[in-house]
Amino acid sequence: MNQASDEKALVVLSGGQDSTTCLYWALRRFGAGNVEAVTFDYGQRHRVELDCARKIAALAGVRQTVLPIDTFAAIGGNALTDAGIAPEEGVRDDDALPNTFVPGRNLVFLTFAAAFAYTRGARHLVTGVAQTDYSGYPDCRENTLKALEVALRLGMDSRVELHTPLMYLSKAETVTLAQQVGALEALAWSHTCYNGEVPPCGHCASCELRARGFAEAGMPDPLVERCQAEAQGH
Amino acid sequence: MNQASDEKALVVLSGGQDSTTCLYWALRRFGAGNVEAVTFDYGQRHRVELDCARKIAALAGVRQTVLPIDTFAAIGGNALTDAGIAPEEGVRDDDALPNTFVPGRNLVFLTFAAAFAYTRGARHLVTGVAQTDYSGYPDCRENTLKALEVALRLGMDSRVELHTPLMYLSKAETVTLAQQVGALEALAWSHTCYNGEVPPCGHCASCELRARGFAEAGMPDPLVERCQAEAQGH
Repeated sequence: MNQASDEKALVVLSGGQDSTTCLYWALRRFGAGNVEAVTFDYGQRHRVELDCARKIAALAGVRQTVLPIDTFAAIGGNALTDAGIAPEEGVRDDDALPNTFVPGRNLVFLTFAAAFAYTRGARHLVTGVAQTDYSGYPDCRENTLKALEVALRLGMDSRVELHTPLMYLSKAETVTLAQQVGALEALAWSHTCYNGEVPPCGHCASCELRARGFAEAGMPDPLVERCQAEAQGH
Repeated sequence: MNQASDEKALVVLSGGQDSTTCLYWALRRFGAGNVEAVTFDYGQRHRVELDCARKIAALAGVRQTVLPIDTFAAIGGNALTDAGIAPEEGVRDDDALPNTFVPGRNLVFLTFAAAFAYTRGARHLVTGVAQTDYSGYPDCRENTLKALEVALRLGMDSRVELHTPLMYLSKAETVTLAQQVGALEALAWSHTCYNGEVPPCGHCASCELRARGFAEAGMPDPLVERCQAEAQGH
């Protein structure tokens, strides 16, 4: 049996709005000294996400570990038939779909996160996935995560617990939660734009979804405010 | 719903005795044209395993894909706090435990294999894990794999099926199965030795277990015969 602490938690931090909110949720829930973050460098198209995650972890004062995953790029269009050929890496300049999307990707993230949590003695795993209105991925649904939790517990002989505080929240409710747990300042450094732009482009589906969430919650987006202030030379 | 073929199968091929036997089991079960193999290059201490897997796939006449996984090395003792630091790679010369052992490793292998099978249109996933008498890993047990199968099906919206033909076989029964499915010739090129030696050292726990299996099944080990013949200059 894993002797993981009942208090320690690991947050999967992508640098986006949802995982940032979850990081602050975890700080409230488990206490500042008990929270760590893990970020995956899996060849994402927008490397700025990694910078955001680093900045947010520093702002929150939590230890952050970046773990590489080179497998998605190899599966998604660059499958190797010879181990000597390196998979595609790094930024893509075109608008093509990244070669890193693979079905069940979130299962992999959470399994690696659980393995890392095990080595860190953390029993609680926190992820910002939600099935409400903005994720079509089946591996972000609650039934998938409940089944995965069973597999992880059996497979690691542990009592790992998956926490998904945003699972049934709307984007507006997530914004309200962010305010309640003190995440707004950090959200000024989070990343959402599908086009990878900072300041965010404002017109892609991700930007519109985020803007609608803040509008419905009746709050300005700290990211937009920060970018506007910087543009005005403040 | 995934439209994967009901006939196509993907075998997780490590180059060892068990996965080699499973590869030939799958050829009998699903037919030669329907079987592929996937091998993981995760920084294993004995790189000779990868050579064995390649040789065996070629002998069996199946398409083999080698997928890299750089994450285990990063988790197991080389966790990165900065994405700019590369994890340890390649062969270790000492006898220390490899830095790539991570709890739940088999969960990761099977999740990646299921993702790859999805992209290849293969519904069946075959793995040589067994819980009988030679695996203490909880993620090789049947209850873990049943739970994982549910998570994979839900998370990939697929009908993936995990096959574990060796789950309850003793080593001797696995040898008998290898004979029945025509895997003996290929077993001459499989890898078992814990010390990574070819010819096998003959005295490590893995070599002794393998030798006992062949002895109890009343058959010579084709690997030992091949090495003896080569030593005698045949």
